[in-house]
Amino acid sequence: MSSLQPRKEHKFTFGLWTVGNPGRDPFGEPTREPLSPVTIVKRLSELGAYGVNFHDNDLVPIDASATERDRIVAEFRTALDDYGLCVPMATTNLFSDPAFKDGAYTSNDPRVRMYAVQKTMRAMDLGAEFGAKVYVFWGGREGAEVDGAKDAREALKWFREALNFLCEYSISQGYGYRFALEAKPNEPRGDIYLPTTGAYLGFIPTLDHPDMVGVNPEVGHEQMAGLNFYHVIAQAIEAGKLFHIDLNDQKGCRFDQDLRFGSESIKNMFFLVKLLEESGYEGSRHFDAHAYRSEDPEGVWDFAAGCMRTYLIYREKARQFNDDPDIQALLAEIRSTEPGFEQIPLEFTPERAEQIKNLPLDRRELAKKRLPYERLDQLIIDLLMGVR
Amino acid sequence: MSSLQPRKEHKFTFGLWTVGNPGRDPFGEPTREPLSPVTIVKRLSELGAYGVNFHDNDLVPIDASATERDRIVAEFRTALDDYGLCVPMATTNLFSDPAFKDGAYTSNDPRVRMYAVQKTMRAMDLGAEFGAKVYVFWGGREGAEVDGAKDAREALKWFREALNFLCEYSISQGYGYRFALEAKPNEPRGDIYLPTTGAYLGFIPTLDHPDMVGVNPEVGHEQMAGLNFYHVIAQAIEAGKLFHIDLNDQKGCRFDQDLRFGSESIKNMFFLVKLLEESGYEGSRHFDAHAYRSEDPEGVWDFAAGCMRTYLIYREKARQFNDDPDIQALLAEIRSTEPGFEQIPLEFTPERAEQIKNLPLDRRELAKKRLPYERLDQLIIDLLMGVR
Amino acid sequence: MSSLQPRKEHKFTFGLWTVGNPGRDPFGEPTREPLSPVTIVKRLSELGAYGVNFHDNDLVPIDASATERDRIVAEFRTALDDYGLCVPMATTNLFSDPAFKDGAYTSNDPRVRMYAVQKTMRAMDLGAEFGAKVYVFWGGREGAEVDGAKDAREALKWFREALNFLCEYSISQGYGYRFALEAKPNEPRGDIYLPTTGAYLGFIPTLDHPDMVGVNPEVGHEQMAGLNFYHVIAQAIEAGKLFHIDLNDQKGCRFDQDLRFGSESIKNMFFLVKLLEESGYEGSRHFDAHAYRSEDPEGVWDFAAGCMRTYLIYREKARQFNDDPDIQALLAEIRSTEPGFEQIPLEFTPERAEQIKNLPLDRRELAKKRLPYERLDQLIIDLLMGVR
Amino acid sequence: MSSLQPRKEHKFTFGLWTVGNPGRDPFGEPTREPLSPVTIVKRLSELGAYGVNFHDNDLVPIDASATERDRIVAEFRTALDDYGLCVPMATTNLFSDPAFKDGAYTSNDPRVRMYAVQKTMRAMDLGAEFGAKVYVFWGGREGAEVDGAKDAREALKWFREALNFLCEYSISQGYGYRFALEAKPNEPRGDIYLPTTGAYLGFIPTLDHPDMVGVNPEVGHEQMAGLNFYHVIAQAIEAGKLFHIDLNDQKGCRFDQDLRFGSESIKNMFFLVKLLEESGYEGSRHFDAHAYRSEDPEGVWDFAAGCMRTYLIYREKARQFNDDPDIQALLAEIRSTEPGFEQIPLEFTPERAEQIKNLPLDRRELAKKRLPYERLDQLIIDLLMGVR
Repeated sequence: MSSLQPRKEHKFTFGLWTVGNPGRDPFGEPTREPLSPVTIVKRLSELGAYGVNFHDNDLVPIDASATERDRIVAEFRTALDDYGLCVPMATTNLFSDPAFKDGAYTSNDPRVRMYAVQKTMRAMDLGAEFGAKVYVFWGGREGAEVDGAKDAREALKWFREALNFLCEYSISQGYGYRFALEAKPNEPRGDIYLPTTGAYLGFIPTLDHPDMVGVNPEVGHEQMAGLNFYHVIAQAIEAGKLFHIDLNDQKGCRFDQDLRFGSESIKNMFFLVKLLEESGYEGSRHFDAHAYRSEDPEGVWDFAAGCMRTYLIYREKARQFNDDPDIQALLAEIRSTEPGFEQIPLEFTPERAEQIKNLPLDRRELAKKRLPYERLDQLIIDLLMGVR
Repeated sequence: MSSLQPRKEHKFTFGLWTVGNPGRDPFGEPTREPLSPVTIVKRLSELGAYGVNFHDNDLVPIDASATERDRIVAEFRTALDDYGLCVPMATTNLFSDPAFKDGAYTSNDPRVRMYAVQKTMRAMDLGAEFGAKVYVFWGGREGAEVDGAKDAREALKWFREALNFLCEYSISQGYGYRFALEAKPNEPRGDIYLPTTGAYLGFIPTLDHPDMVGVNPEVGHEQMAGLNFYHVIAQAIEAGKLFHIDLNDQKGCRFDQDLRFGSESIKNMFFLVKLLEESGYEGSRHFDAHAYRSEDPEGVWDFAAGCMRTYLIYREKARQFNDDPDIQALLAEIRSTEPGFEQIPLEFTPERAEQIKNLPLDRRELAKKRLPYERLDQLIIDLLMGVR
Repeated sequence: MSSLQPRKEHKFTFGLWTVGNPGRDPFGEPTREPLSPVTIVKRLSELGAYGVNFHDNDLVPIDASATERDRIVAEFRTALDDYGLCVPMATTNLFSDPAFKDGAYTSNDPRVRMYAVQKTMRAMDLGAEFGAKVYVFWGGREGAEVDGAKDAREALKWFREALNFLCEYSISQGYGYRFALEAKPNEPRGDIYLPTTGAYLGFIPTLDHPDMVGVNPEVGHEQMAGLNFYHVIAQAIEAGKLFHIDLNDQKGCRFDQDLRFGSESIKNMFFLVKLLEESGYEGSRHFDAHAYRSEDPEGVWDFAAGCMRTYLIYREKARQFNDDPDIQALLAEIRSTEPGFEQIPLEFTPERAEQIKNLPLDRRELAKKRLPYERLDQLIIDLLMGVR
Repeated sequence: MSSLQPRKEHKFTFGLWTVGNPGRDPFGEPTREPLSPVTIVKRLSELGAYGVNFHDNDLVPIDASATERDRIVAEFRTALDDYGLCVPMATTNLFSDPAFKDGAYTSNDPRVRMYAVQKTMRAMDLGAEFGAKVYVFWGGREGAEVDGAKDAREALKWFREALNFLCEYSISQGYGYRFALEAKPNEPRGDIYLPTTGAYLGFIPTLDHPDMVGVNPEVGHEQMAGLNFYHVIAQAIEAGKLFHIDLNDQKGCRFDQDLRFGSESIKNMFFLVKLLEESGYEGSRHFDAHAYRSEDPEGVWDFAAGCMRTYLIYREKARQFNDDPDIQALLAEIRSTEPGFEQIPLEFTPERAEQIKNLPLDRRELAKKRLPYERLDQLIIDLLMGVR
């Protein structure tokens, strides 16, 4: 089916660290060789991707000399041009180095907090060089195991201070970045501050430039807290704050798995794709996932192709959902009310308040409304399984 | 120890529905007789509580006539006066009646949405009669099992509309309420919208009167999502949004247990109490818990006394923590940095940005900072266990 | 598709308590009227079910007189005959009555333990009257909130004692029952003893008649512990212990939801059905689920039909999986090894041990084996979605 | 307090991999240098430990020559003798090397299965050289992400085959090992077969030498499935199968944290220690945990000392529990029944069955039994907090 063929306009992106993941885990050594950024660009382009994203040190090693940096940047630039890929998003690695062992912006040591800001500014420069317009912050080490060691309120103040400073930096440099904050409840820290996308949505209005700042929710991160990812994204979109999204999958409440998009939470990911497609979201469909550790180098590209294909399958199912007369008839019934009932608009006036207070509503009658959700949900299962 | 004796100034409150819980659960019939509100007032007062809170139908049955209502209200008023208890908070039951089977403010049926607003206004009137100044909203049925049946964005719009209307209602009536929104990720619905306190903190800034609206986090509800409750409350306090709190406990990610406060999550609840006591939080310490179903009528008061006692134990431990020279010396070390290092203030100027970018920070040096968190945490265990 | 039409030979069964569930939950009153057992039999038969199961008090109220009991039994017998349904399984309600507030066979009160055995013998008599051959034990109240109150080892001894006694009772009466033990980790108790099917598989060999006793795993109960239900059933089948199965679904680690079979965990339930169909399992496909609380009386039958339909969809997909040449070719490759490698049989002899110890196996070579699991799993997604 | 001073007779052991953990995690590089086995032996001995355990490659690198191996073994032997430590347990690393990327005994590739058996036999030889009498099997890679790729029943058969072979090997060599099987539900694999201690208790009776084989439960591994660890151990002890135990702690359902023993689940770990001390368990108290990644080399020893100290604190509290007259009086009441009630022994005779069936037990009376669990549990909180 041609509708399942990835094309640039689908805005599929991958991180260098995703297809480049060598298969190391807490209990095992790498199973694959590192891939060069140039190889990644080539292969992703062939598969139909739109862009490629990076942490500073995915592209430029932390100890690279200025010359090395320039060479790497030039080669990467050439590859992007050759293969027609862009860099919509960039981010900073503030978690791998032992310097960040107790956090970056929220480290108890002010030197580390300074270093984190320094490293971020440099990484923002790098991202801007490639035209990135979204800058992601994942505070992987901004957390604690020992709550006695750090006042969580102070940690939030430090974090805010850093974000405010970096917003100003972007403005002063004319980078035009929009910041996208990414939550995760835990791992690698015992607990991570601001553990859910919701928590970030609550944090953003306390910043100096709330309009510049939105969220970058990740499927698996919210699922680690047992949350319904479709609901999470609905809130972010409704608040105008979905600046970026990390697509992957997860087998429920457990360690962070970064599985191929849509390979586990089939129904929830279907509603997610339907929402993304229908909401006018114009950002990247970024896959923050990686191939199973058991996969060989070629299998990585099966993985990448699968992420995009499954997205397109769900997109196609969403179209069918909207075209299905039985489903649409059920929805019309579900959303209907008693004929003749006139809703009073909920724009407050004292008269309306009085009017609503005195509406003759019989709770026993209200309870009788038929809600054929079992029937609707079965039609959705049939649709997803391809048996309608 | 007299420091463990509950007194009015500790601001301990209970809901009528908490000590009045008859021990019904999804698999079993009630084990205890209902208690009259007057009995509850008397017993709570004797135990040292400060106030008592209610849902409209905890006090006045849903089908009570106007005469019955007046009689019940008068008797309750007398009991409060006789026993010196106040009503700091009130709320609406929008979940028990079958009319709310698919939500209240977010029901697909506009009649139900109207009925929910009507019921809330009447319940706000009732709360105001008793001088309640905090009004809690727990949207127990505002959720879904079948995401095909309701657009989650529309549900949020409906919810916002209702809250905006009710804010205006409070203002127009001069009730002086502050609204406190209470999150829960699921149960009784498959998923509940705005599943965490964080999600509500993100929702509040989208309301017409954000200043009137804060949160009412519940220990167990955040624990159902695996979150660190101390972190949740730190964010709420830091944002100036902790308007009320529901104290109980929970054995991890599972059904909502409403266990006796502090009976399970000992270390986390210690940090919570320490934070509440040190942050200047002046609201109620409200226990939203109930006695085990196996308890007899007298055991209910053991339960209530235990909630307050355990709070005071943790309060006393927090005092000891602050007075402990070994702990304080470790904290001083942990929060120190390299002698002579001068932090550059994170108020942005281009010069400071440049200065930070060029700070000679050696990540290998930074990584060497000793962080004796194991030692600190062990001292905390010793302190909690009473072996220091 | 006729392959999706439920027929008696599919052995689909429901409990009286499943389609009869009136929609009460911890936060709300019933939304549906009770259904008579006779109505249930009629409707299930029309939908294509094979049998109907019950707890003693689903059929006969706990306080029924002997005359009432006889009348009820006779009417039910007639209905079964009229509509061609059988009763393959029966069980005892040892959780609703307040007498069981601290457990039944494991209550601290020996009178309750006696009462539980008494009630079970009578319920076994009732089940035997209807020809039930599987007798299920779900110890819903066999647990604790307060581990100080009961030695968990003693609880297990009491439980074993009761089961041993009841095995003998079945033998002595010639009932021919096989016992099927059903695990659940928690709810309604804070924790339930023997919380997983695995724990029961470990308990059974300690009984006097281990051959008479197997397990009755329930999808959602294992998912409440985050377990892979397909793996759970594979172990039970491999051990010859799958005597019965409770099919439903669940949105992950949370309260017990009893959702329509296959409506959430699509991939896992597909592998489950494939396993059941291919393993020679000949027992009932029992649905222990219920309609959403929002459903009206007719919606209950949509729910019941959906459980069976979805089972048959997965069964059909399993057939396709086996017929799919691409999938089968991948599996053949995955299961292959180096040409010429001869496995040494793992039946021990000292010579073989020596031989294996000295096999020239190069771990670097072994690591190179291609395992195209991403490709295989994507084919499975395609198959499930109906796009192959 | 001298009762909190670790001594050899307490049988505290650590693994080389625990105090030797260098602080690498999925998102970060090591923060500490490796420690030599000899240093570990010295420091553990000074702290009061009894023994030290190892995986084959903790002691001898996977590619060590025979000469190196001999030198390492000799040095380690000398250190053990010098510092008076023994090696009660040994185990095999079957998870780090890429060869095991799809499992060891359950790999789809028969060469890998042979290699796993080979490596285990050699590791058993090594353990036996040091007098280890418990041999642990943790099947960290024995699992799957893609259930389409492997029949879970076949995996169990392969696993059984290997264990049977290795039992025979131990017998044939006269090693006198008892095998202790260790469960974990997931991580590093998406799902691990036999995910709980219960599942292993069910698997053991299917082996050729069930008497040689028991379990090695780990606190955090069962907590990852949300299980009550005290209940898990009660079942294992009651079945005579607790051959070894891995003590650590965990912040609930999430990634495997291996926290300092007793630092989180205070009440549950108290009941665990009480059970271990009172059950006659004579095996090692093995700590399978590691210092926080933020800790420096000295902090590792604070961590190790803390594990032992906290165990001894709980042991001391258990003694107080047994000596506390109020607690004991409550327990006596809880365990009492109606005066004059005579329990009928549950050894089956038809007469007893009849007698029990006709016992005049009134469920309403039974429900009235007072069960002061709130009071008891509060006394336990008081005891744990040191305020009694």
